[in-house]
Parts: sequence; C-alpha cells; structure tokens
Amino acid sequence: MAKKADKTRARLPRGFVDRHASDIRAVEEMNARIREVYERYGFDPIETPIFEYTDALGKFLPDQDRPNEGVFSLQDDDEQWLSLRYDLTAPLARHVAENFNDIQLPYRTYRAGYVFRNEKPGPGRFRQFMQFDADTVGAPGVAADAEMCMMMADVMEALGIARGDYVIRVNNRKVLDGVMEAIGVSEDGQKLTVLRAIDKLDKFGPEGVKLLLGPGRWDGGKEGEGDFTKGAGLDDANAQIVLDYIDGKAGGLENPTFQSGASELAQIESLCRAAGYDESRISIDPSVVRGLEYYTGPVFEAELTAEIPNEKGDIVRFGSVGGGGRYDGLVSRFRGQPVPATGFSIGVSRLMTALKNLGKLGQDPVLPPVLVTVMDGDTEAMAKYQQFTQKLRAAGIRAEMYQGNWKKFGNQLKYADRRGSPVAIIQGADERANGEIQIKDLLEGKRLSAEIESNEEWREARVAQLTVSEDELVDAVRKMLAAQAEAS
Amino acid sequence: MAKKADKTRARLPRGFVDRHASDIRAVEEMNARIREVYERYGFDPIETPIFEYTDALGKFLPDQDRPNEGVFSLQDDDEQWLSLRYDLTAPLARHVAENFNDIQLPYRTYRAGYVFRNEKPGPGRFRQFMQFDADTVGAPGVAADAEMCMMMADVMEALGIARGDYVIRVNNRKVLDGVMEAIGVSEDGQKLTVLRAIDKLDKFGPEGVKLLLGPGRWDGGKEGEGDFTKGAGLDDANAQIVLDYIDGKAGGLENPTFQSGASELAQIESLCRAAGYDESRISIDPSVVRGLEYYTGPVFEAELTAEIPNEKGDIVRFGSVGGGGRYDGLVSRFRGQPVPATGFSIGVSRLMTALKNLGKLGQDPVLPPVLVTVMDGDTEAMAKYQQFTQKLRAAGIRAEMYQGNWKKFGNQLKYADRRGSPVAIIQGADERANGEIQIKDLLEGKRLSAEIESNEEWREARVAQLTVSEDELVDAVRKMLAAQAEAS
Repeated sequence: MAKKADKTRARLPRGFVDRHASDIRAVEEMNARIREVYERYGFDPIETPIFEYTDALGKFLPDQDRPNEGVFSLQDDDEQWLSLRYDLTAPLARHVAENFNDIQLPYRTYRAGYVFRNEKPGPGRFRQFMQFDADTVGAPGVAADAEMCMMMADVMEALGIARGDYVIRVNNRKVLDGVMEAIGVSEDGQKLTVLRAIDKLDKFGPEGVKLLLGPGRWDGGKEGEGDFTKGAGLDDANAQIVLDYIDGKAGGLENPTFQSGASELAQIESLCRAAGYDESRISIDPSVVRGLEYYTGPVFEAELTAEIPNEKGDIVRFGSVGGGGRYDGLVSRFRGQPVPATGFSIGVSRLMTALKNLGKLGQDPVLPPVLVTVMDGDTEAMAKYQQFTQKLRAAGIRAEMYQGNWKKFGNQLKYADRRGSPVAIIQGADERANGEIQIKDLLEGKRLSAEIESNEEWREARVAQLTVSEDELVDAVRKMLAAQAEAS
Repeated sequence: MAKKADKTRARLPRGFVDRHASDIRAVEEMNARIREVYERYGFDPIETPIFEYTDALGKFLPDQDRPNEGVFSLQDDDEQWLSLRYDLTAPLARHVAENFNDIQLPYRTYRAGYVFRNEKPGPGRFRQFMQFDADTVGAPGVAADAEMCMMMADVMEALGIARGDYVIRVNNRKVLDGVMEAIGVSEDGQKLTVLRAIDKLDKFGPEGVKLLLGPGRWDGGKEGEGDFTKGAGLDDANAQIVLDYIDGKAGGLENPTFQSGASELAQIESLCRAAGYDESRISIDPSVVRGLEYYTGPVFEAELTAEIPNEKGDIVRFGSVGGGGRYDGLVSRFRGQPVPATGFSIGVSRLMTALKNLGKLGQDPVLPPVLVTVMDGDTEAMAKYQQFTQKLRAAGIRAEMYQGNWKKFGNQLKYADRRGSPVAIIQGADERANGEIQIKDLLEGKRLSAEIESNEEWREARVAQLTVSEDELVDAVRKMLAAQAEAS
C-alpha cells in the first residue's frame, strides 16, 4: 500500500478514454455486420502493426496544429524514427509495396484497427480511435470506385440504417482540379488550401468558405476576434466560381482535367444505377472533398441524414461516418511503377454512437451472472459454493461466486443489486446439513419489495424464494431465468 | 509515381509483422471461444487505451536489456512522459484506481489487446503481440485464485485441447519468499535475481539455475564464452536448498511466510478438487515463478504438454501459453487502502500457433469469391457485370467483379486460379445479345485439365462449363457450389 506522499496519481493522458462493456459489445456487433458485407464483396482481412517507419507513412494529415505534425513519433535504438499509424491506408500501401511480388493484384482486403492522432483533444475528438477500412489495390478503373460506394451503401443497410436515412456522396478530385486550373490555381499549397476551404462547407456555410477561399477567416466572426485562418487568396470573382461549382450551379468546363473527372463521375453514376442504387443512396455531389491530401480521383463520403437524438436528447444531424477515395500515388511512392488503388474507411466509434442513439445496436443486452453467495468461510462450505457455481457454468448459465469479503452478507446483496444479478443462490449451515439450497428471484424480489411495507412482513412472506435439493439446482435456476425472460 | 532516386523503401520496423487472413481468422475464432468462457464465469469486457502516463504503468518488466527499460515512451506536448502499455494488468490497475468510487467490487473484467515491448526482437519474439486477460479486483481470498485456475482449464478445453494435453501449474510467491527467508535472502534485488533464476529452469535445467543462483552463468557454457549473466550470489548449500525446494524434494519450513503460502496452496488445491478438477488439470508445482515483479501470492501458468508438430514438422513441446497470479499491490500504488486482485493472461499469438499446429483452428476455411470476369469495357457491358456481381452478393454468395486490367483475359483466369475462385462468370458480346451467361466450374475444370491432353480436345469438350439465361444465374451458381461442397 502506498503512503499518501508516495501515491501515484491514477489518470489517463488527455484525449484517451477507457471503453466500457456496452460500447465494446456494440462495436463487436457492428464490426461483425460490416465484416460480413466486406467478405460477401470478396474482401479478405489483412492487418498491419501499429508502428511504421516515419518516412514510410508519409505526411498526409490535414490541420496539423502540433510540432510533430499530428503523428506520435519516437526514435528506435538504431536512431530511426518510428510513428504510430494515423490511418489504415498508408500502412496498407507500405504492405503492398513490401510484398509486391507475393501479392496477386487486384488485391481486395479489409482491416479494423486503432489509429492515432497527436492533436489537441476536444469533446468527441480523441487521440486514439478505431477505423474499419476496405481497399482494392491494383484496380485502375472507376468500376472499383463504384463498387466501393455500393459496398458502403450495403454496409449502412446491414447496420439497420433505413434507406433515406443515409447517403453516399461522390465527387472527383480531378473535377476540382479542373476548376482550380480554370481560375489559375496551380501551386500545391494553394490548391490544398482551396480544397480544405471547400471541406469546411458543412461547418462554416458558403460565407465562411468564401472567406477561406479569399483573404482568410476570423473564428470570432469579426477582424481581430478569435483565431485567424489564412485564406487561399482568391479574388472575389474566382472565389465565386468555386462556390458556384460546389453549389452545383456552374456548367461544365472545357479543360481536359475537368472533363476526365466529369466523365469518371458519369461512369460511376451509371454503374451504380444499373446495379439498382438510386440517387437517394449514392449521389454525385460537387461539394465533397475529403481532408486527406493523397486522393487523386473519385472521393466519397458516407453521411447519416437521419435526425438522431444524442445522449442529451437533442436532435442532431449526425453527418459523416466514413469516407474514402482513389489514391493512385500512395503505393507508387515505394515503386517504380503506377499502382492504382481505391478504398473506404468507416469511423467506428462515431458510427457506433449514431447506431446506439438510433436504437440499432445493443438490443440484446447480456444477462448479468447468477450470484452464488458465501455464508461460511470454511473449506468445506467454500468448496460447496464453488461446486454450485461450476455446475451452473457447465450448464451454460452465467454464474459467479461472491469473491469479496463475505462476512457482511448485506454487501453481497448490495453487490447483486448493483450488478443486476437475476438470481442469488444461498446455502447456510442448516441447509448444507440437509443438502438443500435457497434460490432467490432477485428481479421478482425487487418488484415485491416495492409492495411489501415492513421488514417483518417481508421475512414472513419469504417472497420470491424457493428451497430445492442440491441436485435440483441447475433445473430450478434455469426455470427461474426462463420465467423472468417471459415476464420481461 | 516515384522516381527511382526518390523512392521510399517499403519495410517494417524490426520486431513488427503484418498478419495474414488465415491467422486473423484463427485469432477471431479462438478469441470468441475464450470470451464465451470468460462471460460464463461472470466477467464483462473493459478496455483501456494503448497509452498511459509512464509513472502510472510503473516499472515491472523483467530482463530489461534496453535503455528505456523495455517500454516504448515519448513525451507529450505538455512535457509529460507517455508509454505504450507492456501488459494489460498495469493499465487495469490504473483504471480501477481512477474510477474507484464508481466501480462495484469485486470487479470481474476481461480484455483482449495488443501490448508492446521495446526489446531486441528475435525468432518468434515480437515487439507487438496480443494478450487476452481476465482479472478479479477486490477479491481477497484464494477462492478467486482457484477460480482463475479453473477458468483457464475450461478455456483450454473450450479450445479443443484434450484433457492430459494441458496443465495449469500453481505455486505461491509466499512459499518462495519463505524459502528465501530461511536462507537469509532479504534484499529486493537479490530476491528478484533468485526468482528469475528459478524461472529459467525450463530453459537451462537445474545446473544452469544453480549457476544463476550462485556465481553467475556464461551463455557459451564456459568461462569467457558468450554473454555473462550475473548470479544471485548464493553459496552452494543455499543454492541446493532452493533447487531441492523447486524440485519438490524439500519438506516444509517453519517460518510464517512459508506456512501462509503453503496453506493458501492447500486451499486452492482442495477447492479445485472439490469442483472436479484433478491433478492432471490443475497441479501444484513448486517450480512456477512467473517473470513479473508485481505478483504477491499465488502464481499460475498454463502449459501445453502435448507434443505438437511445428511449421517445419518437428515435434516440439510448446510450453507456457499464459499465466498470471495475485497482485495485491498494483492498485494500492494509487490508493491509500489495500485492493487485492488476481488475474490471468493468455498469450494469444502463441496459443493460436499451437492450436493451428494441433489442427484445432481454421477447420472451416472461408470460400474464395466467385469471379465475374470482364470481356468488354463499354459502359453497358460493365453495368451488366456489376449487376451479376451484386445479384450474387444479394443472394449471400461471395462474389467479385474483376477489377484489374481486363483486356488480357488470361490474366483474369490466372487471377481466379491463384485466388482459388470456385466459379467464373463469363459473358461476351454474343451471349449478351442472347441474354445468356457462361458459368465455369473452376475446381472441376482443374481436375479435368489434368486428364485431357490437348488444347483442341479441351476446347471441344467445353468441360465443366454451362450456359444459362441471365435469370438463372444465382440458382445455377448456387447449385454448382453445392455440388463442389459435396464432392470435396
């Protein structure tokens, strides 16, 4: 035991959280359904470790407000820099490049895992979170992108999200590149600033985006108020061209980059429609950008359009729960040849929260265990309690023997109550001598205790309790659990 | 595409590996069975993040041969040191201490997750590996330790390991402390050196342990050969007392520490026997130590005693696949009060390898997808191929449309072959005009191709292939897959 002065303070680093049983079970359930869809589409699992060499990951993160640019890094014994993966795409590119001769292309794989961002944590913004990705590497045609969109629509429906409550929105970086080409934006840094300005449409609206495209934007709304975000420096007319385009008001452009992007989008649309996915499920949307730098063609976003109550009961529009796109350059970074690829990533924790709030997960809660109480501490009695517990478990019934300080029986019942135990098993010295056991229906007992007024009346009634011989334990408990299930 | 000079080298940091489909599926299957046992015993999941404050983890790792003592650490923006967890026990202790007022003790939880050791990697020794733990916190009595042992025995059997092919070996650190007390070893460092010497019995035999208990041991076998490990400095007589004890030859000792440990072991034994676990499943064994410093009472180890063929076909005795013990001091580090606890950890990757070699996992391999081939690239044709693929998927059949460069049809069949696709769907322009599809039985085709000699004969036979109308696609594929399943 630590002396007061020596005690270590028990606390988690900022931006990290412990996950509890109901969330863990909900994620398990959700991931199993996602996995089933990915498998049906012919994808197989592959997993990479949490560490990569820093140079192998590359620098593709948006909004880097920290000195080590959004990534957790450390130096290995041999002086080389290692980083924790910030997504599951960059490590996949490394995996494919490293094992290029052993891999049969096109390569369809999926993976769920934690990723890490060394960012300022905030409400709902964690430094460790889970993604669940699917990728096709070695697929040059937009049929592969179309398939990604259809798969995401199928995932949404496999998770119980009704048609009309989600939409997969699709755009193409080439189209955006064509628009930028037309207004003379050609420098990489400026291009990225324009893209990230467009990406803020949901957050700041057209007026905010216009500022970000132009001179820059003050968080407080007025000059000098709050933080300032530098703009892309477009003049008014050119900013308006971009805004008209993402609003769908602009016509086509003549330049080949735009034309190529628009033609790819048209192909994706016709493939989706032919396969029975209408506009309400997969829709072309010129405002979709995606924040990551490595996309080279089609980009997609899965959005929940349903209005969903949050924990506080407020109705919120949930927004994006995943996205992806084509990244033809990521594997090529390592290779002397082009390796086209496309993929999709689901934000697991975010989607799980939405599904729980929609009532689509955790509908079959796990029954808490039957509690075998401890009345006597001698070896013979303890052996009996252990036997009862093992018998129940062997019969497939969740059960536990009380492992705290058994001498205060009140604590055991309090424990059972807080744990939600459905049934308690009790054997004192008298019962042991007779080879009998008391079985207490704790749920029925709770109901009755609201009705019975005095302790005396309670004791006399011996409610919700029955005495059986030791042999009858399993049968009696099973019957009681069945009766409870029926009554609930 | 990278120019040759700019190319990043695709490689994983030493000690880290990518995991492939069959291993991932085997671990899923195994973890589901372990989870089922843990749940039956009344344990619920809880999960902590991968990072902890370095001081919260404490320093409990054995064999620290690296400057940062076996742990991956980095400094946060606020100058505080963070470390990656090296096991799942220390973070659980932090979690319990941090949420002490909200947690109902005794607290039964389980968790699977990756842990990290910053050690020199070697064959079969990785720097990231998975553990699957169960712990009871707030359980002062040895009944909780006995239960851990029984649960581990049940886990082994749930995984298909036959009775007699595993054993849970149990000892008590207090007994070892009593032996050390009797020979005058009282300093913490020397005690740890003695324990770690004993822990090497499997590896170096009694002679090696005697050297480690005494003057020290040269890896090469002779003075000056190989690395030298410093010994505990016991004289011959005292080293012999320790060796006799771990060999089971010594009688009891009078000191209270030894007596208390021996009495706890006797209780554990009688609880296990009463619940039907005999010596072949749970056995008291004075040579069990466990490498971690934080154990304070009973320690246990799950060992596979079966002789198991390894990948090379050699027969090996697999040894330990998990272990644990009582750690009454870990939560108390954070608290002003004692918080007794006991737990068990399974080495997931190691056990999975053993089970695969025993033929206990991966017996139902996942069927590779049906391949819808691409004969023509126009939008109408592509839409058809996509439709067929979606129809098969909607019917629950794993299917994929070829997403590589479709122009070389030979590549598509080569892909199907390497992928193990059971069926290929083919539609050229003529068939499309007639609303027909060719369905090719690739397994039967492979069998026949061994029998048919000439290409001409093959083309004429049009073996293992049938033509159906588009409407009949799903039915025909389903029948073909069923026939294949029957034939295999």
